[in-house]
This record gives sequence, C-alpha cells and structure tokens, in this order.
Amino acid sequence: MDIATLIGLVAAFLLIAITIFIGGSAGAFINIPSLLITVGGGFSAAMAGFPMAEYIGGLKAFLKTINPGMPDPLETIDFLVDIAKRARKEGILSLESSIDDFYARDPFLGNVMRMLIDGLDISEIESNAEAAMAQIEQKLSTEAAVWETLGDLFPAFGMIGTLIGLIQMLQNLSDPSALGPGMAVAMITTLYGAILANVLCIPTTKKLKYYKDLTMTFKEAYLMTAQAIEKGSNPNILKQKLSGLFGVELKEE
Amino acid sequence: MDIATLIGLVAAFLLIAITIFIGGSAGAFINIPSLLITVGGGFSAAMAGFPMAEYIGGLKAFLKTINPGMPDPLETIDFLVDIAKRARKEGILSLESSIDDFYARDPFLGNVMRMLIDGLDISEIESNAEAAMAQIEQKLSTEAAVWETLGDLFPAFGMIGTLIGLIQMLQNLSDPSALGPGMAVAMITTLYGAILANVLCIPTTKKLKYYKDLTMTFKEAYLMTAQAIEKGSNPNILKQKLSGLFGVELKEE
Amino acid sequence: MDIATLIGLVAAFLLIAITIFIGGSAGAFINIPSLLITVGGGFSAAMAGFPMAEYIGGLKAFLKTINPGMPDPLETIDFLVDIAKRARKEGILSLESSIDDFYARDPFLGNVMRMLIDGLDISEIESNAEAAMAQIEQKLSTEAAVWETLGDLFPAFGMIGTLIGLIQMLQNLSDPSALGPGMAVAMITTLYGAILANVLCIPTTKKLKYYKDLTMTFKEAYLMTAQAIEKGSNPNILKQKLSGLFGVELKEE
Amino acid sequence: MDIATLIGLVAAFLLIAITIFIGGSAGAFINIPSLLITVGGGFSAAMAGFPMAEYIGGLKAFLKTINPGMPDPLETIDFLVDIAKRARKEGILSLESSIDDFYARDPFLGNVMRMLIDGLDISEIESNAEAAMAQIEQKLSTEAAVWETLGDLFPAFGMIGTLIGLIQMLQNLSDPSALGPGMAVAMITTLYGAILANVLCIPTTKKLKYYKDLTMTFKEAYLMTAQAIEKGSNPNILKQKLSGLFGVELKEE
Amino acid sequence: MDIATLIGLVAAFLLIAITIFIGGSAGAFINIPSLLITVGGGFSAAMAGFPMAEYIGGLKAFLKTINPGMPDPLETIDFLVDIAKRARKEGILSLESSIDDFYARDPFLGNVMRMLIDGLDISEIESNAEAAMAQIEQKLSTEAAVWETLGDLFPAFGMIGTLIGLIQMLQNLSDPSALGPGMAVAMITTLYGAILANVLCIPTTKKLKYYKDLTMTFKEAYLMTAQAIEKGSNPNILKQKLSGLFGVELKEE
Repeated sequence: MDIATLIGLVAAFLLIAITIFIGGSAGAFINIPSLLITVGGGFSAAMAGFPMAEYIGGLKAFLKTINPGMPDPLETIDFLVDIAKRARKEGILSLESSIDDFYARDPFLGNVMRMLIDGLDISEIESNAEAAMAQIEQKLSTEAAVWETLGDLFPAFGMIGTLIGLIQMLQNLSDPSALGPGMAVAMITTLYGAILANVLCIPTTKKLKYYKDLTMTFKEAYLMTAQAIEKGSNPNILKQKLSGLFGVELKEE
Repeated sequence: MDIATLIGLVAAFLLIAITIFIGGSAGAFINIPSLLITVGGGFSAAMAGFPMAEYIGGLKAFLKTINPGMPDPLETIDFLVDIAKRARKEGILSLESSIDDFYARDPFLGNVMRMLIDGLDISEIESNAEAAMAQIEQKLSTEAAVWETLGDLFPAFGMIGTLIGLIQMLQNLSDPSALGPGMAVAMITTLYGAILANVLCIPTTKKLKYYKDLTMTFKEAYLMTAQAIEKGSNPNILKQKLSGLFGVELKEE
Repeated sequence: MDIATLIGLVAAFLLIAITIFIGGSAGAFINIPSLLITVGGGFSAAMAGFPMAEYIGGLKAFLKTINPGMPDPLETIDFLVDIAKRARKEGILSLESSIDDFYARDPFLGNVMRMLIDGLDISEIESNAEAAMAQIEQKLSTEAAVWETLGDLFPAFGMIGTLIGLIQMLQNLSDPSALGPGMAVAMITTLYGAILANVLCIPTTKKLKYYKDLTMTFKEAYLMTAQAIEKGSNPNILKQKLSGLFGVELKEE
Repeated sequence: MDIATLIGLVAAFLLIAITIFIGGSAGAFINIPSLLITVGGGFSAAMAGFPMAEYIGGLKAFLKTINPGMPDPLETIDFLVDIAKRARKEGILSLESSIDDFYARDPFLGNVMRMLIDGLDISEIESNAEAAMAQIEQKLSTEAAVWETLGDLFPAFGMIGTLIGLIQMLQNLSDPSALGPGMAVAMITTLYGAILANVLCIPTTKKLKYYKDLTMTFKEAYLMTAQAIEKGSNPNILKQKLSGLFGVELKEE
Repeated sequence: MDIATLIGLVAAFLLIAITIFIGGSAGAFINIPSLLITVGGGFSAAMAGFPMAEYIGGLKAFLKTINPGMPDPLETIDFLVDIAKRARKEGILSLESSIDDFYARDPFLGNVMRMLIDGLDISEIESNAEAAMAQIEQKLSTEAAVWETLGDLFPAFGMIGTLIGLIQMLQNLSDPSALGPGMAVAMITTLYGAILANVLCIPTTKKLKYYKDLTMTFKEAYLMTAQAIEKGSNPNILKQKLSGLFGVELKEE
C-alpha cells in the first residue's frame, strides 16, 4: 500500500475543494458539458495515440500507484542468498524442487532459474534475460507514457473548451450582464484540465516511472543471483552486491 | 485494423462538435479563410522542412495509424522457428525453395535469408542488416517527424491568424458592436490550430513512433533467426528468445 | 556552510519584500487561503509522485544546500595518498587498524577498504562499488527530483488558485468596484507560485544536483585509491590523478 | 533544386498575404520600426552567440535548403562500386590516375583515397576519417544552430517590441480612440516574430539537419568503400551494403 | 577579440534604444525599483543555485565572450608537429628543455608532456589526461550554466515584478486615469527580464558553450600529439590528423 499516493491525492483534492467553498458559489464549478469536453476529449485523443491493449493496460496501471505490490528488498535478498547457498551446497539441480516457488514469485525469476537448471550457457541465459528485460521495461514505460500523454492532453482540451466558450460568448455580446458568467463558464474547462494534469496525471506518471525503475532493479537482482550461482561465487559476496544494488543497509554481517 | 485510432479520433471530434452544438451558433465555427491560413500555412511550412518525397511519404503514413498492417507476433514466432527447424534438419540450402515467401513477407527478411543461403560470413550479414535497419528506422522516424512538425506548426499558424485578425480589429474600433464578433473570428484560427495539433497530430505522431519500434522489433527477430540458423542453435531456445523479444507468453513448450 | 545559498535566498526574498513595501499596501500580499492552495496543493501533489520515504528524504535534503557537509578535496587527496603510501610500505593488511576511520569518514570508503583488506578480486570490488555508486546516485537524483517537481507544481497550483478566483469573481460582477481587488486576490496565488518556484525550488534543485556530482567524484576518488593500492602503483601518480579528478592545483610536487 | 523549400515557403507567405488582404487595410501590416526591432534585434543577438565566421557561414547555409547540391545516391553507388572493381582487378595503385576526380567530387573522398593509395594502415585511415567526419558534422550542426537560434530570438524580439509599444501606449491613455491602433502597432512585432520563426527559421533548421544527416551518410559510404577496397572484398557485397546504407532499391543485381 | 559579441550586443541594445526613442517618452523606461527586483532578484536566486566560487567564476567568464584568448589552430598545429618532429629525431628527453614553454602555453599541455618525458606508461597518461579533461569540461560547463540559469531567472523575476505591480494597481482602482501608467510600470520588469535574457544571457551561454567545445578540441590535440610521439608515428600523419580535428585546410603538404 503506497500511502503517499493516497494522502497526496486526497489532500490536493481537498485543498482545491476548500478553496472553492471558501469563495462560495461552489455549484458554479460543476459543469457537465465542460467535464465532457475536457475529460472525454483527453481520454479519446490519448486512445488514438496507443494501440487499444496498451492504452487500457496503461489506464489500469494507475492502481499500481496505490497498491504497487512490490516485494520487500530485504526479504528478497535473504531469499536469493538462500537459493545461492542451497545451489552451492546441493548443486544447481536441487533448485528443481522450488521451481514453482520461483514462478509464483516472479515469472521472470522462474524463467531464469528454469534455464539455469536446464544447463543453458550463461551467455545464452543473459542474452535471453536481457531481451525479456528490455520488453518488460518497454511495457512499463508505455504505462507511464499513457499518463504522461493524458497530462498533456487534458490541459489541451481544457484550452479547446475555453476557446469554444469564448468564441460563443464573444458572438453574443448583446447582454453585457452575461459577459462575466459566460467567461466564467468558458474558463472552467481550463481549470479542469489544470487540475487533472497536475493532481492526477503528473504524480501518476512520476510514480509509475519510479516503480518501473524499482521493478527493473528486482529483475537485475534475479539475473545477478543466477550469474553468481553459475559462477559458484561466495553467497556472502552476492549478499553484499544485492544490498548495494538495492541500497539497503544489512544489519548483521 | 487499429480500432483505438478510429474510436479515439471519432470520439474526440464528436465531443468537440457536441460542445459546439450545445452552445448554439455552430455556423460561427466554420470560417473558410481561417481554415486556409491555419491548415494551408501549417502544411506549407512543414513542406519546406522536408524534401518533397519524404514529406509526401510522411503524410501518407497517417494511413498506417488506422491500418498498420503488422504481422502477428505469435504467428511470426512459429514461422521463424519452423524455418530454423527446417534449416537444422535439411541444411541451410533447403531454404532456397522458400526465398520468394521470405521476400513476400518482408523484403528485409528476404535479403537476410538470401545472404545466409549465399553463404556470406555472419559478421557481413549482421553489418549489412544493421545498415539497412538504421536506414529503415531513419525513414520511419522521418514519417513521425512530419506529424510532429505539423503538430507544432498548426498552432503556430493558428496564432499568426489570430494576431492578423486582432490587428485588423484593433484598427477599426469605430463600431464597438463589431468588437466581440471580430475577436471571435480572430480566435477561430487558434481553435483550429489547437484541435488539429491535439486531436490529429499528437496522437498520430505517438502511434507512428509506436509502430516504428514494433517494426524494428520484427527486423531484430528476423536477424536473430538468421544468427540462430547460422550458429545451428536449438530452435526451442530461439523460440524462447523470440517470445522474450516480443513479450508474448507461449502457451505450450 | 554554503554561504551562496544563504546570501542568495535572503537577498532574493528581501528584494521582493522591498518591491512590495515600495508600492505600499503590503498587507494585501498576505492571504492565508491563497497560501493554502498554492503551498499545500504543491506539497500534496508532489507527495503523490514519490514513495513517502523518498519524499520526506528529498524535503530534508534542502538542509544540504545550506550545510552540505562535504569533505575538503585537498585534505581528502592527502588522506588517500597517505593510505596508498602506507599500504605500499606496510602491506594492505596494515590498513585493518584504520578501518573504523574509513567507515567514520564515509561508509562507502569503509566498504571498499573492507573488501580490499579481505582480499577480494579487484573486479569484484569494482563491480560491487559500481552497484553501490549507482544506488547512491539514484538516491541523490531523487532528492533533486523532489524539488524539481515542487518547482513545477507550485506554479501549477498558483494557476489553479488564480483560475478558481477568476471564475468566482466573474460570476459576481454586480459590484464593479469589487472587480479590481477580486482580480488582485486571484493573482496572488500565481505570484506565490512564481516566487516559490524561482527563489526556492529552482536554486535548490540546481545546488542538490551540483552536490550530487561532487559526492560521486568523492566516491570515484575512493575507488580509484583502492585500485591504485591493489595495483601497487606509485602514490605520486595517484596524487596527480586525484588532483586532476578534483580539478585542484597541487602546490608542491 | 529542392522544390519543397520553394513551394513551401512561397505558399506559406502567399497564404499569410491573402489572409491579410481579405481583411483589408494591408498597409497597416507594414511598419518599418517594427521590422527593425524584430529582424535587426534577432540578427544582432544571434550574432553575439556565434563567432563571426560561423555566423555568416550559417546564414549563407540557407541557400542549401533551396539548392542542396547533393550527389545522386544511385549514381554514387555505381561510381563507388566501379572504383572497388577497378582496385580489385588492377590494384589499389591504379586509382592514382583518378585522384583528381575524387577530390573534385568531394575533398573528403579525395583525402581518404589519397591515404589508401599512400598505403596507410586502415586503422590510421579510419581514425583520420572519423576525426574529419566529426569536424564536418560539427560545422553542419552549427549552421543549423544559427537558424535554430534565430527561430528563438525573432519571437523574443517580437515580444520585446510589443512590450515597448504597450508601455508607451499605456502611458498616453488621454485619447481613448488611439488605444486600438496603438495596440495594433504594438502587436505587429509579435506577428513579425511569429512569421519569421515558423515560416522561415523552423523549416530551414529542419532541412539543414536533414541534409547534415544525408551528407554524413555520403561520407560513411566513402569510408565504407575504402574499407572494402583495403579488405579486397567482393564489390557486389559493397554494392548491397551501400544500397542498404542509402535505403535505395537496386533494380538489377 | 571576438567582434561578433561586441557588434551583436551593441547593435541589439542600440536597436532597442532606437525603438524606445522613436516612440517618445524614453524616461518612462528607466525605473530603479523595477531594475532592482529584476536584476537583483535574478542575480540573487542564481547565486543560491551554485557554490560561491563557481558562481563568481561563471559571471567573470562573460569576459571570455569578448576576449576568448584562444590559440590559433594553424599555429598550434605547426607547433605540435614541430614537437613531434623533434621528439622523433632527438628523442623524447630532448623535449625537457621546452617544458616551461609547454606549461606557459597551456598547463594541461605541460602536464601531459611532463608525464611523457617522465616515461609514464601511455595508458596512465591517457587516463590522467582524461580525468583532467573531464574536470575542465565540467568547469566550463558550469560557467555556461550560470548564464543559462540567469537567462531563466531574469524573465522569472520580471514576471514576479509585473505580478506585484498588477496586484498593487488592481487594489487601487479609485483613480481610473492611473490605470494605464500603473500597468505600464508593472510591465517594465517583464521588459527588463526579456531584454536581459535574450540580448545578454542566451548569446553568452551559446558562446561559452562554443568556446568550451573549442577548448576541449585543443586538449584533444595535445593528447593526440603525446600519443603520436609515444608511438613514434610519422609527423606528417599527425599533421593531417590535427588538421582534420580542427577542420582547417592545410596549404602546403
């Protein structure tokens, strides 16, 4: 559970709501056609910029900013070092019995271990793992790109809505008293666009990129473990290397 | 058929049209001279930024965002693994009979296989393939760049049109009642520029870049297959590698 | 103590205060709800863009711009060259007695020396040190990124506050005399956003990036020393190399 | 002759002129002091950003966008393959007789062939050619940078002119009827800046970058030919490689 | 002496002054408090973004845009080729007598030659020289970054000044006749910021980056000469290589 996302989003929306309520006439800030053009337009144009499956996957990735489901680095280090110890003592083939655990933890880990147990050359394993990592990174980058694109398009459609409103208002200046409210309505789409971009899209993009980097660090740790097992190197050195990779302090040792 | 492009573009244009109709006086939003300066100006200035052939090719590439004509990754993996199996069993020269199929599927695949059958050194094949891939990537990047340039120039000519309109309006302030409609007309070019850029050009640029990356992944898969055949490596390992490259899950194996 | 930060920040804030006082009516520039939406909104949305621990760490990093706590390059060069001399004369194991000093100076230096004394292969040491350096650089980059994000979000929430204020003002145009002060209040959030971004966030981001680069230079110097000790190279050549790395002129030699 | 530049520039300027004439009062759009500050200011500030020789060279490079003087890729491939064939049949020294042709075609080609005939080591030739190519690319990049800088500075001086005009107008509000024309004049510099940047500078920058890349492709082709001759490889393979490099289809083969 | 800087800066400032004088009321464009907030604020906030020594060094670097003090490439090539010839004929130790000349010309050249004469391994010399070059490039980049930062902060403080002025004006609308002059004063800070950024900071940043690249080319030439001497290669080949590096045509040879 990522509490920073929850607290941050709720607090930002609350502060905007409070600002609106302090000034009174809060009802004026809800306008369905304005919502339609800004939100609908932004979502539609962004859809045209991605293949459908990638677009829907990117939208769903928002949930990861609240519940990233990342393993714990310290627990992962212990787990990987235990594997390395076992492989050193009982041989690589002894890992066969845990292969389902590996797949359950991470299909990527499972594939790497599968190849190791099958006796593939380490350079083949590395080349396969790197192709898969490039593909995973590409997929996670696309998820962040969906929200980055929305963060550009919501304000753009907010501006389009405001331009449409202004043009309509300017062509009917017969009633001067309608000028102010007319402009107010026109400006609401710009406000919607600015709020959606800065409260929702920009933080979501940043957090998805953060978790993308963290995900790739886990994949690197899995590959590093396979390399250490294959080389038969000291599990304590692997432990130190993994803790450096994750930037965590190890208590004992 | 890329339905995301179709649905996204149609929905975005519809939402804009609905917003205009709700506000009434939809006729005021159609202005031929405004269309001329924004659309014509943007297309003309973009033309000056590319050689003619590249420019026309870039414009035509818009069709790819609707009908990308990409092969299916899973079917391609099966096809390439079958080739590798055949070459392993019957020898590389047995591929000679299918060379026309290779060229029909993709001239790049045909060339690579041609060189393989002709017995060229693998480093020669790689170096030739990489030169061709760089050239293909360059060409596809230019196609996306045409739309990126249009996405910059349509709003710029929208602004130029608005400035011209405002200057003309400001020099004839004798009739105050003409002020509003005058400004409305001036602002229409900015609206046109914003719509063209955000609904058409930005999504098109993004999708062309997406398909460029996917196209290059196919070329890499073809080269990877040639390398595997030349090395005589196990077709199952090639299969795993290709599925990692495309990021697809293989059912059986 | 980094006096440029102190003098720069104080002078910039003073100049803004003086400008406000010269124009009179300074009280009009303090508006609690405006402060709330700009500052609170910016901090909240930025929080949603980072994991909580990284966010709080990034905010705390502001203190580094005033008190960076960087070692002196010249003193560090002498210290490292002395280590190299001792290791050359008395053997690498003689460094064991100073290992606590190394850890006190910099845990990274301690770890590198620990590995050197333990007799690890230099390529293992390098690979471990580089993993740790990548992690340290990542952490320091995130600190700078927190302030870069705030520098984007404060002006954005300033604009959101101004839009809310303008919309409220435009819907109540019955009293024309309230128009001016209404717009004035609306514009205060934009002013707050501009001041926070340009006086606080942009300089802080730049300085954190500067100290990040300098920190990495120290880590490189520590690793370079370990390499020189392991190779048994002349301490004078190490001295020259370190002075080149830090870009300092050496007096004697 | 690059007809896209000609047609594009002429069409864009014509469309702007037509838009102005349709609105009437075209004379109002010609204002010598406005032209002076926008055009003169932009050219002057850009001059301060480059050494004199590079600046004048960059300005002159505009002619290349109309008359690029690029050799034909197909003809060049034939020419280079013929050289390779001759060198293979009659020996490298037989190229001595054509050295003036090489220099006439391209001094870079001349130098590379000169070194080849003189019997320099191929790694020496490559290292010299790469230093020269880096320098040529640097020079062509600077030419594009001059126009990119102008494309930033013309709108900036347009804005400076508008600010000066607005400040002068605002200080003399005694005659309200002068307000409109005053603002109109002030806005003309912004219009000039926008037209110069978007019609002239941005397309010119793009096209100069395009020809820079094409020029470097020719240099690569010349070096590739020298490498093939030195290695004594099959001219048909060189032909295939060159056609991949230029992305052209070869008819016969 | 870099005449492009002098002519460019003087012409741009003159054109602005002429534009102001043509419009009359030039006195209105000089406003001490506006100057204070724009110039003082920009300098203060930029100071907070760099350590004091780097900031002052960066400001002083402005003088280099007028008097860059760069050696002449052709003369430098002759000088370096002469060294190489002497070293080849009389041995590397014969350069000992000229070591003070080398240091006087460029401390970097002196250090490289010192190491060469002292008989250091060429890979040690390269590694030391590259560490020093990275440090020199870092230092020159920081100088350009100071002016780039000022180019961002002057317009930002111009906007802050304008916002303060507008807010003060809007709160005192009792006297409508003061509206125009009030807005005029408010806009002066924006004008100051735009002029400082576009006339002074942007060209200075560009020119400092240009001289940074040129300085690094000279360092590369010095290192290249040391490499050629160590390898004992033909001085004529060095001459050709250096002329390629600098992109100059050699007359005789």
